[in-house]
Amino acid sequence: MNKLTLETAKRMLAAAEQKARQMGLSSDIAIVDEGGNLIAFYRMDNARIAGIDISQNKAWTSVAMQMPTSNLAQSALPGGPTFGINTTNHGRLVILGGGIPIVSDGRIIGGIGVSGGSSAQDIEVANAAIQAFESMRGAGEPALATARIGSIQSIR
Amino acid sequence: MNKLTLETAKRMLAAAEQKARQMGLSSDIAIVDEGGNLIAFYRMDNARIAGIDISQNKAWTSVAMQMPTSNLAQSALPGGPTFGINTTNHGRLVILGGGIPIVSDGRIIGGIGVSGGSSAQDIEVANAAIQAFESMRGAGEPALATARIGSIQSIR
Amino acid sequence: MNKLTLETAKRMLAAAEQKARQMGLSSDIAIVDEGGNLIAFYRMDNARIAGIDISQNKAWTSVAMQMPTSNLAQSALPGGPTFGINTTNHGRLVILGGGIPIVSDGRIIGGIGVSGGSSAQDIEVANAAIQAFESMRGAGEPALATARIGSIQSIR
Amino acid sequence: MNKLTLETAKRMLAAAEQKARQMGLSSDIAIVDEGGNLIAFYRMDNARIAGIDISQNKAWTSVAMQMPTSNLAQSALPGGPTFGINTTNHGRLVILGGGIPIVSDGRIIGGIGVSGGSSAQDIEVANAAIQAFESMRGAGEPALATARIGSIQSIR
Repeated sequence: MNKLTLETAKRMLAAAEQKARQMGLSSDIAIVDEGGNLIAFYRMDNARIAGIDISQNKAWTSVAMQMPTSNLAQSALPGGPTFGINTTNHGRLVILGGGIPIVSDGRIIGGIGVSGGSSAQDIEVANAAIQAFESMRGAGEPALATARIGSIQSIR
Repeated sequence: MNKLTLETAKRMLAAAEQKARQMGLSSDIAIVDEGGNLIAFYRMDNARIAGIDISQNKAWTSVAMQMPTSNLAQSALPGGPTFGINTTNHGRLVILGGGIPIVSDGRIIGGIGVSGGSSAQDIEVANAAIQAFESMRGAGEPALATARIGSIQSIR
Repeated sequence: MNKLTLETAKRMLAAAEQKARQMGLSSDIAIVDEGGNLIAFYRMDNARIAGIDISQNKAWTSVAMQMPTSNLAQSALPGGPTFGINTTNHGRLVILGGGIPIVSDGRIIGGIGVSGGSSAQDIEVANAAIQAFESMRGAGEPALATARIGSIQSIR
Repeated sequence: MNKLTLETAKRMLAAAEQKARQMGLSSDIAIVDEGGNLIAFYRMDNARIAGIDISQNKAWTSVAMQMPTSNLAQSALPGGPTFGINTTNHGRLVILGGGIPIVSDGRIIGGIGVSGGSSAQDIEVANAAIQAFESMRGAGEPALATARIGSIQSIR
């Protein structure tokens, strides 16, 4: 899979929406492509208006920084190595957890961003979409999938 | 129906997407609520990146100006009554056809914006979503529906 | 009267609101001070969301350009002396009629901006507020008042 | 009461203005609707120009985040769960106390934002407007009103 299609994005959104509902959350959920450009977006009923921007820019940041946004939540603390990075890119760069790159064949082909709960909850909802994506890709490439998920966990 | 739900927005997006596909178009399609805030967005495969902003802001403009954006395409011509209006609202106000208010019980409850073809084509795609919305609302209120569609056609 | 007070601004807003209601309009109405900074704002029920920005920036433009915005509606036409001026100042400069400077003792002490109807209607609503302001200033200074109103009419 | 009217907003502004005056403050006070769009605004004589933006965006933030902005003042501290959130939404998201959602029948129908004193003072002025709103709504729904005010107090 070289490019995220709208159909894939819809199925990822559906997985994230289902997960958020199970967790009792109303989330904003966004999927961007490898250029950081929006493919699809859902705001669940009663989800925060502020999350429209935050979810989209979490997705963008995960692609633009090539890492989960939860990494930045740590490194952008005062004294950290990326302190102040959230005011670059006209404020588009978000340092709250919940943005995760979508990786296929070792390449970042897009990102998902979720806003609606705590950062830990947003990450959980985003991961549901990532898992749906992995399932769509078939049973192959276990090493890649493991490596990716592992790298995220080691970052937090 | 007082408020647009995400489910309604999805069905409107699906109708617009189907219509665009039938017409051989790749469109960006956005639905906003009565406050102009985004509910849902689809970028069809190969649709223009520029349309991400344009479709969303057509939807916003249809709500914020309480009229189809095609009205503005005419009135914002040099010498027209709203010449220059497209540079207000930080450039968010779009004067290209393809943004249409979503009306329920005589009240604007949201808007749809489409970008991907000519203005006439974008209007046709947006109208497919409006018709899907009317169908969802049931067979009632034919006068209202007729008046709204009629007013749009008389405006162009 | 050297400075616009909030009380004066409220009475001007009330006069404009009453006039708009008499004309069957739902208007956004803004008053700024001599620095172009907002003093008071009303959005009448059902007035356009787009008018929030437009009314405020009409008021700002009337102070910042030291003239009614209706002047610019003419001069900013293609081939006119200020063609393109509406994209300066980050789009804050509005070339639609309905912004009028508030003048006291020959000095601009603020501006009013109205959005909600046609430019002619917006000017009429704004003038109702200007007249309320003139009344508040008392029966004195008729020459000044006449000159100001005259200059606006000659401009259009 | 399902929608904030301009008349309700004026009465809330008047209550806030009176409270600010009693406290010896010059405040900027803004009321937005459920979509975060401005309904009415007052800048008291000698109030800070910077407060024009701050008060409006406090009101917006309280709606967009569905919580008093004083919550964010705590949670956005370095190491807090929303550290960095104030640079999202193009800087529109304010983490200073003084923005409070306006709740009716358990639903957020708007927000008030105040800027002019310390955060504690701004909250006190905003609460005067909230209390005026509760009075307008009549003696009903005491549990709701209590819960809302309680949740704000517990948050700080």
